[in-house]
Amino acid sequence: MNPTTKTPLSDYLRHLVGQSVNAIDTPALVVDIDAMLRNLGRMAELARKHDVRWRPHAKMHKSATLAKLQIQAGAVGVCVQKTAEAEAMVAGGVYNVFISNEVIAQSKLSRVAALAHRVVGEHGQLAIAVDSPEGISRLAVAMNEARAGTGTAAAVIDVFIEIDVGQGRCGVAPGKAAVALVHEIRKHPALRFAGLHAYHGKAQHLRSARQRREMIAMAVDDIVYTRKLIEAEGIPVDLITGAGTGSMVLEASSGVYGELQAGSFLFMDADYAANERDPAQPQFEHALFVKTQVISSRDDHAVCDAGHKSHAIDSGLPKVHAFDAESELEFFNGGDEHGILKPAGASRRVPAIGRMLWLIPGHCDPTVNLHDAMIGVTGGLRNGIVDRIIRVDARGALT
Amino acid sequence: MNPTTKTPLSDYLRHLVGQSVNAIDTPALVVDIDAMLRNLGRMAELARKHDVRWRPHAKMHKSATLAKLQIQAGAVGVCVQKTAEAEAMVAGGVYNVFISNEVIAQSKLSRVAALAHRVVGEHGQLAIAVDSPEGISRLAVAMNEARAGTGTAAAVIDVFIEIDVGQGRCGVAPGKAAVALVHEIRKHPALRFAGLHAYHGKAQHLRSARQRREMIAMAVDDIVYTRKLIEAEGIPVDLITGAGTGSMVLEASSGVYGELQAGSFLFMDADYAANERDPAQPQFEHALFVKTQVISSRDDHAVCDAGHKSHAIDSGLPKVHAFDAESELEFFNGGDEHGILKPAGASRRVPAIGRMLWLIPGHCDPTVNLHDAMIGVTGGLRNGIVDRIIRVDARGALT
Repeated sequence: MNPTTKTPLSDYLRHLVGQSVNAIDTPALVVDIDAMLRNLGRMAELARKHDVRWRPHAKMHKSATLAKLQIQAGAVGVCVQKTAEAEAMVAGGVYNVFISNEVIAQSKLSRVAALAHRVVGEHGQLAIAVDSPEGISRLAVAMNEARAGTGTAAAVIDVFIEIDVGQGRCGVAPGKAAVALVHEIRKHPALRFAGLHAYHGKAQHLRSARQRREMIAMAVDDIVYTRKLIEAEGIPVDLITGAGTGSMVLEASSGVYGELQAGSFLFMDADYAANERDPAQPQFEHALFVKTQVISSRDDHAVCDAGHKSHAIDSGLPKVHAFDAESELEFFNGGDEHGILKPAGASRRVPAIGRMLWLIPGHCDPTVNLHDAMIGVTGGLRNGIVDRIIRVDARGALT
Repeated sequence: MNPTTKTPLSDYLRHLVGQSVNAIDTPALVVDIDAMLRNLGRMAELARKHDVRWRPHAKMHKSATLAKLQIQAGAVGVCVQKTAEAEAMVAGGVYNVFISNEVIAQSKLSRVAALAHRVVGEHGQLAIAVDSPEGISRLAVAMNEARAGTGTAAAVIDVFIEIDVGQGRCGVAPGKAAVALVHEIRKHPALRFAGLHAYHGKAQHLRSARQRREMIAMAVDDIVYTRKLIEAEGIPVDLITGAGTGSMVLEASSGVYGELQAGSFLFMDADYAANERDPAQPQFEHALFVKTQVISSRDDHAVCDAGHKSHAIDSGLPKVHAFDAESELEFFNGGDEHGILKPAGASRRVPAIGRMLWLIPGHCDPTVNLHDAMIGVTGGLRNGIVDRIIRVDARGALT
């Protein structure tokens, strides 16, 4: 139940396919398809090497097309944070979705239950996270109502208990509180206790690889302790799911996590790239850019047409992609519609009016959410051509 | 040429009109229509009192409906920052638009020229800002091409020279550089030199009223000096346009500015409210809120379903609207999809799961840009009803 339904692409976007990158109007969100596919291959290899499932977070790209590309490459399905994102994925043909977040409103849970019945019909699976008895009983009410209303096979929804392994946001404390929730879930035939959701958001952006290792080691201790308590009651814990791009090599090699949720590796933003890389982590490339044009220029600075309506700045300002040392520039905040550019590094040149530049966003998820479409380019940013238009199906899918 | 064309509202939104505020799903962008109309009245009175025109910035609300409401209340038209915003305004029936920004790409200038011919046909007017000879000559090329291609009366576009009165972003330096641009404009019959665009963005958010006064006094000196140089060449300067919500009482009473561009007064965000109010400034009320629900709660904090995909955080995190001292809460960053809430002030209570809260965004412009629609409520946030749905026509209109 998105606020608006999606429309066909504009003539401009449809006619762009096959044209040179020079034809892309600014500001625009551009995906380097070659780099993206290399990142995808690196991720698939990492998961194979550690024999773990991967379920990339689609809250990052919000595209059913990219979700299906990931599933083709070996992902078991996707995570989302919002019911409306799950609906957008299912509408786009993605039938294995985990809502890795708490859903409380009865109106939303009715949609979740309807979706569960829908994907089961497509031989898929829907999963959701809970962290309270109230969340569980509300979900059970919605599932039972949907079961009563459907003529098809009654669906069962997979329910993961979110435990707080150090992020300090949602989730129950590791230990006994989680065990109590397992028993709550098992009271309801429409719910299946599927395991523990243990994502450590705070660990992702710790710059030091050592600090990230320490954080994830503590998370693993919490999980092992909680799992033991649950298993001591004779209840199996089928899966531990979690991890982000910043820490996933640690979860992958933990022997505890069975599924990785990392999403940003696909596009790799400036903030993740600023982390000290763990030696085991593949070298992911930047694949997401904002193309922008200089609209004003003077002695000491230039101004481009991309501000924070074009790219999110919650994790810092974008970096300017430099093709060579002479084109190094630093981006300063110019407000909603402008970026201020000053020469940096070896460069002393202020770019001239009309010059095209490529920005690497600080944070890919909320940047993608600002755009209705991503323009996929092959053959590089300088001489490439537009290969495809990727709809941001779940843009603004907040509910 | 928006990337996508707009679609009808969803069933959910259409059915919401007439229902209680309780029926609004979260997170959602909600406008307190009563407060908004009072703000509108205060602005109209301020402009009348100082005998200045007002041309509110539609980059804030991005809604043709609200633009027309402002014009009914006395505004001469609207400002926008982007060609695509101008197109959305014209498509919605707003025929007096000033693109208060530099436009450089020839593809965009062709759209500007087409729009100029379109609004002249509707007895309207299109204006644009320039700050370089290159910008002027590119605009002239586009206007001449459009003139050659049209069978109707050839349009003239109003051209304002942007002078930098202290913001340090776009704009030529006050003085001789501006005079040179006047001569450039006057070479082209399709362009009319309409005056000076002198917006001081940096002055808007200076907390101290005294500092804002000093900044705008300096801006006025720059304008008077530049105007004198232009008039000394026998060329009239018809209009000085500028001002934002933070400083507009100063521009209004300057005797120099003839037109106010302030936009945020209509919704009034947390950042502008944090300014020390100039005694002459009307007391604008908060009229824009994000409705959100608590989805997780524990001893020391709760988590709501609104993060920075629901509200912009470039000017600080949102404030939680407190109906009374017992419900005071502080909002902490919980990432893209979550907000973390802790008791504040006299309150010691962590809100329970399911509780509805109202956030006052830090910055209204980029917050509105995250949403496809605003839900207009009358009768207050507690017991009101949904009065109307306001489309964000220019959401994502970046080009």
